[in-house]
Amino acid sequence: MLRRTVAAFDNWTVAPMTLDELKSHLLADIPLARAMALDLAGWDGRTFVVTAPLEPNRNDKGCAFGGSLASLMTLAGWGASVLRLGERAEGAEVYVQDSHIRYLAPVWQDIVIHAFSDDEAPEAFAAAYLDRGRARTHVQAECRLVDGTVAASLSARFVAIDPKRPRPAS
Amino acid sequence: MLRRTVAAFDNWTVAPMTLDELKSHLLADIPLARAMALDLAGWDGRTFVVTAPLEPNRNDKGCAFGGSLASLMTLAGWGASVLRLGERAEGAEVYVQDSHIRYLAPVWQDIVIHAFSDDEAPEAFAAAYLDRGRARTHVQAECRLVDGTVAASLSARFVAIDPKRPRPAS
Repeated sequence: MLRRTVAAFDNWTVAPMTLDELKSHLLADIPLARAMALDLAGWDGRTFVVTAPLEPNRNDKGCAFGGSLASLMTLAGWGASVLRLGERAEGAEVYVQDSHIRYLAPVWQDIVIHAFSDDEAPEAFAAAYLDRGRARTHVQAECRLVDGTVAASLSARFVAIDPKRPRPAS
Repeated sequence: MLRRTVAAFDNWTVAPMTLDELKSHLLADIPLARAMALDLAGWDGRTFVVTAPLEPNRNDKGCAFGGSLASLMTLAGWGASVLRLGERAEGAEVYVQDSHIRYLAPVWQDIVIHAFSDDEAPEAFAAAYLDRGRARTHVQAECRLVDGTVAASLSARFVAIDPKRPRPAS
């Protein structure tokens, strides 16, 4: 029997929503999102941009705390996965399964994260979800400085599950 | 020339300190550590245990937010690296370079993280640091449920740098 992979991250039931609605949902339901002063800057159909001010996310040196970067990049990746499902996502549960994070340079400014699909065929994610009620996608997220430097990066795998569909037998 | 790998995470100058002093330092200097209500439960010379209550670290389902798990596991790995240097760590700057995180099961209880060396010869880390003023170590961190289940795991590489030593020329 297939062991259902469950994850602790962001397994919301997602209905089609605007960025403002998504932001309200995150801030209302996740105390740490409020503590980080998360903001959602945009979604152009390919890239999801998440921001946060430096001050609540600093370490003792005054640059960005790695825990904040890890958390914000994972949230950005989750958001990019959810938003790619679009209206088809109604009822989908989207989880992170694993991630690889690299810390490349300190961040002395407000935090800006860009998240986008790392799949060769991104549209296959939504198609597979519609077809089978379960699909995986790879997402890349980058913390980019004003000068374009990538200060941290995340490569992660997310899964979307339709809880109304029967699970595969094996 | 060797490009110095800098990281956004936890690059404190570390003096020998007790767990209480380390905790005070973390809570005073990192707003997110306060928001997560971080606590340091113990260090036996091999394993460093970090805890946090569920409530400030929950998601909308009421289980642990993956961002909190990522952040707490990385902090635990950093602490395990620092504590292994012991008194030799005075002045050391300890950074995370990269990490691989797996989310295996939801966490419906207060969070307990165990972090320990993943090196074949853990003592080589402190020895190399003393010898060369720069050393790397691999750390494993696990979020363990009361029944022993590993609900999330982190495998990470940390580097300790003595800022008083000249950097290698290449």
